[in-house]
Amino acid sequence: MSAPSPRTDLHPHPTDTSATGLPGVTLVGGGPGAWDLITVRGMHALQAADVILTDHLGPTGELAKLCDTGSKEIIDVSKLPYGRQVAQEKTNQLIVEHARAGKRVVRLKGGDPYVFGRGFEELVVCRAAGVPCEIVPGVTSAVSVPAAAGIPITQRGVVHSFTVVSGHLPPGHPKSLVNWGALAKAGGTISVIMGVRNAAAIADALLAAEMPADTPAVVIQEGTTDAQRAFRCTLGTLAETMADNQVGSPAVYVIGDVAGL
Amino acid sequence: MSAPSPRTDLHPHPTDTSATGLPGVTLVGGGPGAWDLITVRGMHALQAADVILTDHLGPTGELAKLCDTGSKEIIDVSKLPYGRQVAQEKTNQLIVEHARAGKRVVRLKGGDPYVFGRGFEELVVCRAAGVPCEIVPGVTSAVSVPAAAGIPITQRGVVHSFTVVSGHLPPGHPKSLVNWGALAKAGGTISVIMGVRNAAAIADALLAAEMPADTPAVVIQEGTTDAQRAFRCTLGTLAETMADNQVGSPAVYVIGDVAGL
Repeated sequence: MSAPSPRTDLHPHPTDTSATGLPGVTLVGGGPGAWDLITVRGMHALQAADVILTDHLGPTGELAKLCDTGSKEIIDVSKLPYGRQVAQEKTNQLIVEHARAGKRVVRLKGGDPYVFGRGFEELVVCRAAGVPCEIVPGVTSAVSVPAAAGIPITQRGVVHSFTVVSGHLPPGHPKSLVNWGALAKAGGTISVIMGVRNAAAIADALLAAEMPADTPAVVIQEGTTDAQRAFRCTLGTLAETMADNQVGSPAVYVIGDVAGL
Repeated sequence: MSAPSPRTDLHPHPTDTSATGLPGVTLVGGGPGAWDLITVRGMHALQAADVILTDHLGPTGELAKLCDTGSKEIIDVSKLPYGRQVAQEKTNQLIVEHARAGKRVVRLKGGDPYVFGRGFEELVVCRAAGVPCEIVPGVTSAVSVPAAAGIPITQRGVVHSFTVVSGHLPPGHPKSLVNWGALAKAGGTISVIMGVRNAAAIADALLAAEMPADTPAVVIQEGTTDAQRAFRCTLGTLAETMADNQVGSPAVYVIGDVAGL
């Protein structure tokens, strides 16, 4: 076959407003929690914004350290009084409405927009509406939250891979797309985000696939913030440790030999 | 069992110099390549530094956009005239020497220090030498480079997990810690970094584990920089596509349904 061409069409640039004349939308990853773990590019986007739509996992409380919030319209879309799916539709609608009105819009998210962040969905919505859209990546909590607790997600000679899993569905759920049995055998670190509620079921699935119960684990709540709490345990004691310490969301847990370093 | 205590001992703070009186070392993730994809905290560390030790994957060429380089000592440790292992030892030695001399040291790395970045090794070296050390996470190229080519590493309804693998060792190598057969069955996106040389062997291992040859794939060289090139292909044509287009390091390839979105 002939070689494919470079996908230069898939590299939108923030200043490419030629087609529409609109300044457009920037989807910004806000990082894991601490205000200064956003990227420099993300901060610049916030500073240039007319409207900021943010969710509760973005560095909302500290926005004023990043930009002059008094000159901007700040919309906390986590507070929209709707069910989950309707809320996303309403968010999409607000993004497009403000962009079409000629406003420079930033959609601020926690972590990275493409790591279980629905960033691609919002990008597609913008394109369908004829609104220029750019993505600014963020530091993902799946890596940086363990790091803030001293846990390297990789380590030479210990592990050559890591898997980041959304734990929002329990193993065996009809809509789950994760093969937990295969993950147990893959030989890498497992980092679970959005998995507080299903921790016991997830640990059971890994144990059932013969991952050793004494595999080191660590769970971190509200990592990188002043409220951070971290607990060492093992795969076998993970669920009990989380229950005993009333670990709530947002939390990340890491299972693998690196958690014992 | 009783509940473990919070690991507050594993959360070093940059201003905690009480034990030594030394300003210490900050290991900074420089992000995937573009100068402004470093974090705000990373930029502030560079601005405060007396000495910056950087490798060729850090945003070295653009350092002057982040800090006043004229007032600092910049050491390009990628240029150290030694073999690989000796170079790391020499880097460790330089970090400790400058820190012990009372300099505020930044060790600038590409991507994230804990994603195949030897960050933990350097942290351990600092601690052993009695030098305060902090880690500033970075945007990992394993996620942000595909993003820059328009590829979301996760997408609701398509995938609930992704695995980041170092491809520096071929499948079956005695020192390889990756179970490629299990990864092929895990059901998530696979993102390979440092895998240019071993692309053919890695694709063969996944095909041998019955991952379909028409699984979408994309390979991106020098992602997020002006030199970015990206090529769509499939698992079956990945190696040929990379060879035909002379794809060189640094490059990331992504295998999974998200590469076809």
